[in-house]
Amino acid sequence: MAGGDERGPPPPGAGAGEPQNLRAVLQYEGTRYAGWERQTNGIGIQEILEAAIRRITGETVTVHASGRTDAGVHAEGQVVSFHLRRRMPQRKLRLGLNAVMPDDIAVIDIVPAAPDFHARFSARSKVYRYSIWNADWPAVLGRHLVHHVPQPLDVGAMREAAAHLVGRHDFRAFTKEADRRASTVRNVLRVEIRTAGSAIHLEFEAEGFLYNMVRIATGTLIEVGRGATPPSSVKEILEGRDRTKAGPTAPASGLCLVSVFYG
Amino acid sequence: MAGGDERGPPPPGAGAGEPQNLRAVLQYEGTRYAGWERQTNGIGIQEILEAAIRRITGETVTVHASGRTDAGVHAEGQVVSFHLRRRMPQRKLRLGLNAVMPDDIAVIDIVPAAPDFHARFSARSKVYRYSIWNADWPAVLGRHLVHHVPQPLDVGAMREAAAHLVGRHDFRAFTKEADRRASTVRNVLRVEIRTAGSAIHLEFEAEGFLYNMVRIATGTLIEVGRGATPPSSVKEILEGRDRTKAGPTAPASGLCLVSVFYG
Repeated sequence: MAGGDERGPPPPGAGAGEPQNLRAVLQYEGTRYAGWERQTNGIGIQEILEAAIRRITGETVTVHASGRTDAGVHAEGQVVSFHLRRRMPQRKLRLGLNAVMPDDIAVIDIVPAAPDFHARFSARSKVYRYSIWNADWPAVLGRHLVHHVPQPLDVGAMREAAAHLVGRHDFRAFTKEADRRASTVRNVLRVEIRTAGSAIHLEFEAEGFLYNMVRIATGTLIEVGRGATPPSSVKEILEGRDRTKAGPTAPASGLCLVSVFYG
Repeated sequence: MAGGDERGPPPPGAGAGEPQNLRAVLQYEGTRYAGWERQTNGIGIQEILEAAIRRITGETVTVHASGRTDAGVHAEGQVVSFHLRRRMPQRKLRLGLNAVMPDDIAVIDIVPAAPDFHARFSARSKVYRYSIWNADWPAVLGRHLVHHVPQPLDVGAMREAAAHLVGRHDFRAFTKEADRRASTVRNVLRVEIRTAGSAIHLEFEAEGFLYNMVRIATGTLIEVGRGATPPSSVKEILEGRDRTKAGPTAPASGLCLVSVFYG
């Protein structure tokens, strides 16, 4: 990529040179968005960030995320990477981006990255949290960040069921679109279930996730928590490799990408 | 009040009799509202709750709150009381009210109260929390519930300053509308300042608060945290009894009525 900047010279005073690889941490409330990527029916987080970078630096870049979050899914620690020719103090760049982005998206950190760093391909593991509001009244404060389940859930049974998900398994039953040629084996490092008042937080860490995997796993654990199916059924569902045997896909509103770990 | 129900007979199957005094706990996100009371420029929480009670029970009641929260102020535990002629299981009444109210208001508890209980006049003390988001990026998740202060705040200095507010003092400097005939002496039981990541929570408990008292106290403590004025100045501001010497009124978005204590 050295040399040929086909977009013309950098803006005056830019101090431009070789493109520098940057790594940024992003937070967003996904409620208003079609997800990381734009869709025909809505705008994506990616295009908003790329437009902000263009406005602040004058450069048109492609931003790579650790993974594409779905419509309505939130992020506390989405990691992205992009190459920028213009040299700007990182804090100034961050403040500039936040000043022009809507208030439901923010860049909380920008640091220089190794030249070969890539937010998606360099990721070692990711942590997602699914938040359930388990009371017979609606969550009022923070209602956009939870899924409301009014029936009482048996958290002990959910923990017992969740233990079956930990480890290297074929998660074909826990994904919406299983490409027949691609492996559906994933390594789940941990599933932790914490309660905080009426909230139940399910934290999943894995080296990688299949499409909708956390939401289907959560939907299945909710079935267990309601007593509709025993904790041991999760083992059978895994072994059966049949999506129709797992629980429903829990709504996007409860899901949040918490952090991404790199080597 | 026994006997003459001037609004006609109760709805069929109501099991109505003597009016029963009820005590309810309410949560709301104040962002969209003019406050507890309706204003010419917006709707109030009170009228929404009264309309919901009318719709579910057929009765027109006046709901008394522990205090009137201002426009944009939230509640985690607002306490209200009202008299209802119709006997309904409390859970059923609560679920009914929540089903017809917007999703930023919820009744989380309803219990029978002593006949002379009054949410406002029976209150012993109230707890308010003011939440500051103290980072140089905006709060994204939960942004409606905080006030964003990008400059670093010295929490130690704020705690030292806050200690001057505890006790029985004349808080005339910390209120917007001091009625000359009414006492501006209030008894502040505690001011606690906790941090949680980039959030700073200021919790105030008092037997009673003056109008805008928590927000002006917070605005003053933010001035101390920024280093604009020393912690000891709070003592001088109290003694001076002059509103213009205290800090600005912190925005409503950070304020939340946490709980109300009764004897």
